[in-house]
Amino acid sequence: MTAALTATPAEQEAMRRAIELAVTQLGRTSPNPVVGCVLLDAGGATVGEGFHRGAGHMHAEVEALAAAGVRARGATAVVTLEPCAHTGRTGPCAEALLAAGVARVVYAVPDPNPGAAGGAQLLREAGVEVVPEVLREEAERANELWLTAIRRERPCVTWKFGGTLDGRSAAPDGTSRWITGPQAREDAHRLRATHDAVLVGSGTLREDDPHLGLRHGITGRPPLRVVLDRRGGIREDARVLDDAAPTLVVVGESAPRPELPSGHEVLALPEREGRLDVGLLLDELYGRGVRSVLLEGGARLAAEFAAAGLLDRVVAYVAPVLLGATGRAVLDGFGAHTLTEALRLRLDTVDRLGDDVRLVLRAGAGGEGER
Amino acid sequence: MTAALTATPAEQEAMRRAIELAVTQLGRTSPNPVVGCVLLDAGGATVGEGFHRGAGHMHAEVEALAAAGVRARGATAVVTLEPCAHTGRTGPCAEALLAAGVARVVYAVPDPNPGAAGGAQLLREAGVEVVPEVLREEAERANELWLTAIRRERPCVTWKFGGTLDGRSAAPDGTSRWITGPQAREDAHRLRATHDAVLVGSGTLREDDPHLGLRHGITGRPPLRVVLDRRGGIREDARVLDDAAPTLVVVGESAPRPELPSGHEVLALPEREGRLDVGLLLDELYGRGVRSVLLEGGARLAAEFAAAGLLDRVVAYVAPVLLGATGRAVLDGFGAHTLTEALRLRLDTVDRLGDDVRLVLRAGAGGEGER
Repeated sequence: MTAALTATPAEQEAMRRAIELAVTQLGRTSPNPVVGCVLLDAGGATVGEGFHRGAGHMHAEVEALAAAGVRARGATAVVTLEPCAHTGRTGPCAEALLAAGVARVVYAVPDPNPGAAGGAQLLREAGVEVVPEVLREEAERANELWLTAIRRERPCVTWKFGGTLDGRSAAPDGTSRWITGPQAREDAHRLRATHDAVLVGSGTLREDDPHLGLRHGITGRPPLRVVLDRRGGIREDARVLDDAAPTLVVVGESAPRPELPSGHEVLALPEREGRLDVGLLLDELYGRGVRSVLLEGGARLAAEFAAAGLLDRVVAYVAPVLLGATGRAVLDGFGAHTLTEALRLRLDTVDRLGDDVRLVLRAGAGGEGER
Repeated sequence: MTAALTATPAEQEAMRRAIELAVTQLGRTSPNPVVGCVLLDAGGATVGEGFHRGAGHMHAEVEALAAAGVRARGATAVVTLEPCAHTGRTGPCAEALLAAGVARVVYAVPDPNPGAAGGAQLLREAGVEVVPEVLREEAERANELWLTAIRRERPCVTWKFGGTLDGRSAAPDGTSRWITGPQAREDAHRLRATHDAVLVGSGTLREDDPHLGLRHGITGRPPLRVVLDRRGGIREDARVLDDAAPTLVVVGESAPRPELPSGHEVLALPEREGRLDVGLLLDELYGRGVRSVLLEGGARLAAEFAAAGLLDRVVAYVAPVLLGATGRAVLDGFGAHTLTEALRLRLDTVDRLGDDVRLVLRAGAGGEGER
């Protein structure tokens, strides 16, 4: 029976809408994914919509069912992720759909979470028509950070940088304002807002005193600010210690623990060869519900993640500027000696932003690129 | 009378076609520009087309008139460049249009060549309706290299390079095959075919033994190969000395003059601080009819042109690869100490070519960028 099932044009359209609803919540739902749901009656008219607003809130399907009320009976649920079968804080969605009398379920992405999968099976066994993998690619893209995290059991790591056409992030004297233009800088802030955590290295913390909050009128849940401070030297008046968002200050095990204003926290990590263990840091963040980390600045920090095979995505803002070889390199300390050792990524998208170009790239399927 | 004259839709369409015809000849017409011409009868039907095939060949207008024969009488000539008024090897086009009885002339770009301008005036005085600057921007773009050369009275200089996302052209061990993919490499060959000369520095000559001819099935007039060889050490069996195209070997005045196979030539140039004077080289090439020079390879050569304000355009092929700071820099020796000294270009176009990205950039209006 299931082999012949395909989505109707109205269901495909509804799936596009469900994806739209889901992505409005990017950066707000971790440790949960973003999910959107549209309920259609027998005539293909929308009778309810919903999206997930994050842990502790209703799941998308339940929100849509609530909106539809009695019109959910006999309806088709179009949902971006396979309905869950597990009982979490909000009860399993598959059962809610059954209880409401939904006749058909169309979904995009199978739930990769071992604790949640099985919803489709449960629905089928109860006699509901189930159509899987409709617009799966588009829906996976919407949940790319979360899916990567679940599959790799650590947060998805994106390195963001702005640089010149010749790969420089600052002039020899340190000047870097502004290499990229206002559109690229604003886009970088939107990017920050879609991540659970933003991470900078000790050098950036010391030299730039970054704030790492949301600006440019961008609202939403501000990401957790994570700063590496191996020797524990963070200044009390560091901008990252204001109350715009919580900050995690990561020090080496042997370093003194800095005193922080309330709302912020110190995390001590083992060191290896004079470097904090970034793999352990990711594990720790994952345990705290962080599913996506944005690396900002830090040519050596990025190199460390690249060398460890922990770079999943790169977002590069390239400015039409030439600085020459005396400028500071965007990536430093990454050790390719010959071309076959280079980190080869896959180009996802390229867009013009004002006078700059944004490239979005992904590491290879294995997550380590093709070293 | 002239103020009210505007091009009809049919004439605009014909201008697009004329531009198409013109660009088929890019790289083949120097020292002349590329020009296309379409003749329309009173009903807007095409009665003749022509394009210029280079010095010694018919001008585009004359070719179109020949195709139209008696149907040129009363016709409208749509031409990408202002018809010339001077008598060169082929006689002035303005007079040919008058003699054929053309009633109206629509053109895109005013002739910037002091020896050729005045055609529009001559036509107007003879009673022909003249509509100037129709699709001027598009037509200027088609003739960008030639127009830049005429305005600056030296060849237009384009620096082409392929590099990684982090601005590296090769790994520390020199491996660079292949950083960019086949589509980008083929595009680079097409770019070469549209230039009058291709130039590499002494280091590239020595290390890469480049051929600099047309490959990938690309046909056309091969560009003049120009190699810097300051100390006159070129090997007799250098690939650039084969018979695929003429080669100009540029040595320092004090260097021994190498013996070259026939068809090739040595040019001795003054040196300044141990470097060949690239400005004088451009003057010399201009005198030989070269209107466009493509710099290929040579991180230091490119830097020299950049520092001298002699870089007009940059074509960058950026590959989705990270090599790290030990890789060879795409641009070396350019001396920006602080960001305001950087060479700021204007982004013209950005395109995806397979997994690579091509950026085309232009120096500032003054030709020196904004240093």
